[in-house]
Amino acid sequence: MPTLVLIRHGQSAWNLENRFTGWWDVDVTEKGAAEAKAAGELMAFKGLDFDQCFTSLQLRAIKTLHIALEAMGRLWLPVEKDWRLNERHYGGLTGLDKAETAAKHGEDQVKIWRRSFDIPPPAQEPGGPFDLTNDRRYAGIAIPATESLKDTIARVLPYWEGRIAPELKAGKRVLISAHGNSLRALVKHLSNIPDDEITGLEIPTGQPIVYELNDDLTAKDRYYLSER
Amino acid sequence: MPTLVLIRHGQSAWNLENRFTGWWDVDVTEKGAAEAKAAGELMAFKGLDFDQCFTSLQLRAIKTLHIALEAMGRLWLPVEKDWRLNERHYGGLTGLDKAETAAKHGEDQVKIWRRSFDIPPPAQEPGGPFDLTNDRRYAGIAIPATESLKDTIARVLPYWEGRIAPELKAGKRVLISAHGNSLRALVKHLSNIPDDEITGLEIPTGQPIVYELNDDLTAKDRYYLSER
Repeated sequence: MPTLVLIRHGQSAWNLENRFTGWWDVDVTEKGAAEAKAAGELMAFKGLDFDQCFTSLQLRAIKTLHIALEAMGRLWLPVEKDWRLNERHYGGLTGLDKAETAAKHGEDQVKIWRRSFDIPPPAQEPGGPFDLTNDRRYAGIAIPATESLKDTIARVLPYWEGRIAPELKAGKRVLISAHGNSLRALVKHLSNIPDDEITGLEIPTGQPIVYELNDDLTAKDRYYLSER
Repeated sequence: MPTLVLIRHGQSAWNLENRFTGWWDVDVTEKGAAEAKAAGELMAFKGLDFDQCFTSLQLRAIKTLHIALEAMGRLWLPVEKDWRLNERHYGGLTGLDKAETAAKHGEDQVKIWRRSFDIPPPAQEPGGPFDLTNDRRYAGIAIPATESLKDTIARVLPYWEGRIAPELKAGKRVLISAHGNSLRALVKHLSNIPDDEITGLEIPTGQPIVYELNDDLTAKDRYYLSER
């Protein structure tokens, strides 16, 4: 039975400050690192093991993966990093905290951006402090100016189909360390969650989510490892 | 001009205790982690950058790489891990400290094993405390019972030719984090060092060694980054 585990990165500095982070590269906090370590220890204790890991190009997801793998004695496992597992790009909201965003755009509008499936926030202005145009990690990639959850899904799923699903079908046990919205994309796909429900699904930081899959990779069961 | 940087892992717990480590998986010490961080900071300060990284399946080399990359803001770079970059397998000496080895085998014999190019230490007994037969990271690999430096070279070079050299020829800048003897194998090959000299070449921990290469990957220059 193919096994897949999803883990959202441990708390980041901007999770703590309640800022829209998106593609901006923010480190995990000490608490976030501790969450990652506890996740690795829990996975080892529950007898989970992996053959292939995937993560984004963002520090908080990569470090969460490394810390968890080290706690499992599995830092030697192969890891593939790809921008398509990055967090949703929050466009012009990137870097703003809740109060700043509400003051600038109004609370109702913010709620729409947070909760809508297909309405993206305003585009990021080029040349601003959070512009990633000159970050060489994204060289050759059409960096989005903003993304709705729908846009995020549209780049996560081809990566799932092209790179992750084949490993699972080949019998590999897979661990994915990623972000709230790139994981929502996968959970929506695997658990068939409707558009208007998926935006309300909260994925907690540092909590391994286990998928037991059928051979065709449809979901048989999905649960938080801490609850079994 | 193809650029290659080699780095030996930072000090490990058994470097400190003067034990033969080989394939046994020993962590870096605090000093070793600090060496790795300083190496990353030095590489960034000197303007070095990379496109592809390689390391062994051993914790001390992987962690050294991760710590150095994080210090460079490059933890997102692709990393390939392979057993063929592992340290030389010290056979029956694994786990012994200098005094134990001298008491068991005599100082002259130990010098021969340390300094000979092609005489391996005695084979490791199966079932002992350092037997890696049941370590799943080496599943499907014929784990050596012992290795001379010559044996180590014989498995490092095919990996160099098959995986690393093609990346350099494709214009990628390459960083390799590995071990005293797997790096000796590469230095011997690239700098044409005779059999009887290479065993005396000491490669210090955590010191980036820069190779400026010609297009055919022969060495133009080799130096410690700290000395330029």
